[in-house]
Amino acid sequence: MVVGEASSPSTPLTNNCSIIDAQKGDPLAFGSYWKQMNDECTLVIKGWELMSYYSDLSNMCWYMLPELKDAIERIHHLVGNAVTKDRYIVVGNGSSQLFQASLFALSPLDVPDHPVNVVAAAPYYSEYKSAINILHSRMFQWGGDAAVYDKNEPYIEMVTSPNNPDGTLREPVVNSVAEGKFIYDLAYYWPQFTPITHKADDDVMLFTFSKCTGHAGSRIGWAIVKDIEVAKKMATFVQSSSMGVSKESQTRAAKIIGVICDGYQNLKSKESELFFEYSKRLMKERWEKLGEAVEQSMVFGVVKYPNAYCNFTNEISETYPSFAWLKCEEGKENGHNYLRKLNISSREGERFGADSKFVRVSMLGMDDDFNELVKRLSSVKIE
Amino acid sequence: MVVGEASSPSTPLTNNCSIIDAQKGDPLAFGSYWKQMNDECTLVIKGWELMSYYSDLSNMCWYMLPELKDAIERIHHLVGNAVTKDRYIVVGNGSSQLFQASLFALSPLDVPDHPVNVVAAAPYYSEYKSAINILHSRMFQWGGDAAVYDKNEPYIEMVTSPNNPDGTLREPVVNSVAEGKFIYDLAYYWPQFTPITHKADDDVMLFTFSKCTGHAGSRIGWAIVKDIEVAKKMATFVQSSSMGVSKESQTRAAKIIGVICDGYQNLKSKESELFFEYSKRLMKERWEKLGEAVEQSMVFGVVKYPNAYCNFTNEISETYPSFAWLKCEEGKENGHNYLRKLNISSREGERFGADSKFVRVSMLGMDDDFNELVKRLSSVKIE
Repeated sequence: MVVGEASSPSTPLTNNCSIIDAQKGDPLAFGSYWKQMNDECTLVIKGWELMSYYSDLSNMCWYMLPELKDAIERIHHLVGNAVTKDRYIVVGNGSSQLFQASLFALSPLDVPDHPVNVVAAAPYYSEYKSAINILHSRMFQWGGDAAVYDKNEPYIEMVTSPNNPDGTLREPVVNSVAEGKFIYDLAYYWPQFTPITHKADDDVMLFTFSKCTGHAGSRIGWAIVKDIEVAKKMATFVQSSSMGVSKESQTRAAKIIGVICDGYQNLKSKESELFFEYSKRLMKERWEKLGEAVEQSMVFGVVKYPNAYCNFTNEISETYPSFAWLKCEEGKENGHNYLRKLNISSREGERFGADSKFVRVSMLGMDDDFNELVKRLSSVKIE
Repeated sequence: MVVGEASSPSTPLTNNCSIIDAQKGDPLAFGSYWKQMNDECTLVIKGWELMSYYSDLSNMCWYMLPELKDAIERIHHLVGNAVTKDRYIVVGNGSSQLFQASLFALSPLDVPDHPVNVVAAAPYYSEYKSAINILHSRMFQWGGDAAVYDKNEPYIEMVTSPNNPDGTLREPVVNSVAEGKFIYDLAYYWPQFTPITHKADDDVMLFTFSKCTGHAGSRIGWAIVKDIEVAKKMATFVQSSSMGVSKESQTRAAKIIGVICDGYQNLKSKESELFFEYSKRLMKERWEKLGEAVEQSMVFGVVKYPNAYCNFTNEISETYPSFAWLKCEEGKENGHNYLRKLNISSREGERFGADSKFVRVSMLGMDDDFNELVKRLSSVKIE
């Protein structure tokens, strides 16, 4: 089990200090914002409320609460990161479930002995491969690195933009004459991580509450889909695999997203910092600290990101990915092992289809953990 | 889509009266109990709470809140319907997800070209087949009626007890020399539906919050598993398909289950009715009304259930299934069509592997709907 790898957080390896878990992508950093908010973010549900399976029988996504649909459309309209007009929204138990749902919706059913290849350009999100392999499906199979895909067979390309693990903006890369379909994983296309350069308008786009606001425990994801037949198939998959999505989480997501949007709409900014300002400032400060630490250590290099004009903040803006994708400088061959000696748990480059020089480190841990992370990165030298 | 069949509830077919939806199994009947409860059932979550993916890294089911695990163990101990000591609990997004998870955990991986047959004795729960077929898995396939399974190949038998649709108590029925594995779907093994005759102690047992308390919108199910390796595989499946389970729902389920258990522990029964007393009385009253209506109509027959001693209520007790499984008397060949003429939407016998004389009708609708259902059943005669 993936998380099992990091399941002994209290066992010190060296230096008699506890392990910093930077392996997982738990977005705890934004908790500080929600902690200083008042009761408007508090969810209250009475014992008899939200008991039915059903939310809206007039919608093909019958389990989706109308207020969540409204909130999703509202925040995309506010941020300007995706087109929602005349599109279909399908809610899922996190974008993980919608990833599988979209594979089911897009895979051809008429060629059961030729599962479609699902590819993503390396370095790719480490969980795509395992989420596909565990299903042992007749409809699709993991096809590896999209950049070297050269089969003359239909394929589905995952386009993760900004990319996990390396934060770069992505476009499709497969060079094949075969028919391709595309799933855009836009989990990180929010202004705290990257400049919003355009309204995304792709066939199937996946988003998640986890990365937008930091509420990973809620397991709320959504897809924005052009073709109603694809959207219907996705909703049927969610019905079949979990008979819908937790209503408690749906109503909480609607409330939290509503509070963010209200803040901008009511221009409360003079009183208190608005969510994307706060979260972007936090990411900026962390990236500055990390940059200094990495420079000081002389062990790792970090990707340089181009600046771009952000349509949401109306200024030239930098990129602050949720992960640091570190590359060992010459002489060090294994980033993961190096960090282990510093009692920093990270995710190995190999898991993302890259080599062992690379390692992924979360930028979204708690304040204390993050500060300890940069301290260890900068001060300890190991030969 | 299954629910789509019943998605036009406001269109009258005949008699200018609206359709009663008795097709779905939405357990709304118990809402009346929760409505009269006080604030102890109210869930309050602040904006910054429950944000992490993780709940307990020391448990193989790392996303399960410890308070939910405790509540599940506590209610089984109270009711006496399942052994939990030295067993592993895996939480899922409803028992639907755990059904798929248990198939993945129990299917042999080493014979990918021979998917294991998943069987259930007819009449069987209509969704097993579709939840299997949608996956197009190399590991397992729908194998049909367990009672006629005669292949000399490994199989997995679903044992649904009490059974959906017909409320009967079940044991395995496959008569084959091949190796069989068993998944016990015990969703309805609660005292409001059936006498609790024994502590179930099977290898894999599935339960759901939906049917126990009526909170279907929460999507909380759990499996009680003997073998830790099976439990680990199930938790890995839930991780891979939805990265855990909504924490809002988990904490609410823990609270509601806790309130039920507190009631019995504190012997508050003198002041107000306890949950299983209330819900059993409600089921009893409804079955009496339905019995009268069916008798009066002379169109349908209903299964007769044996009485048994209930270890929970300490009395001889009747069976009050959550569905009525109606059989047309001679001369009427299609129960579903007959009910349509009464503007009652039901689920056809064929969907459960039975013939068209049979039809499933929910006993768990809202009071007004249920009363209208029995009124139509008893008063209207159609030739």
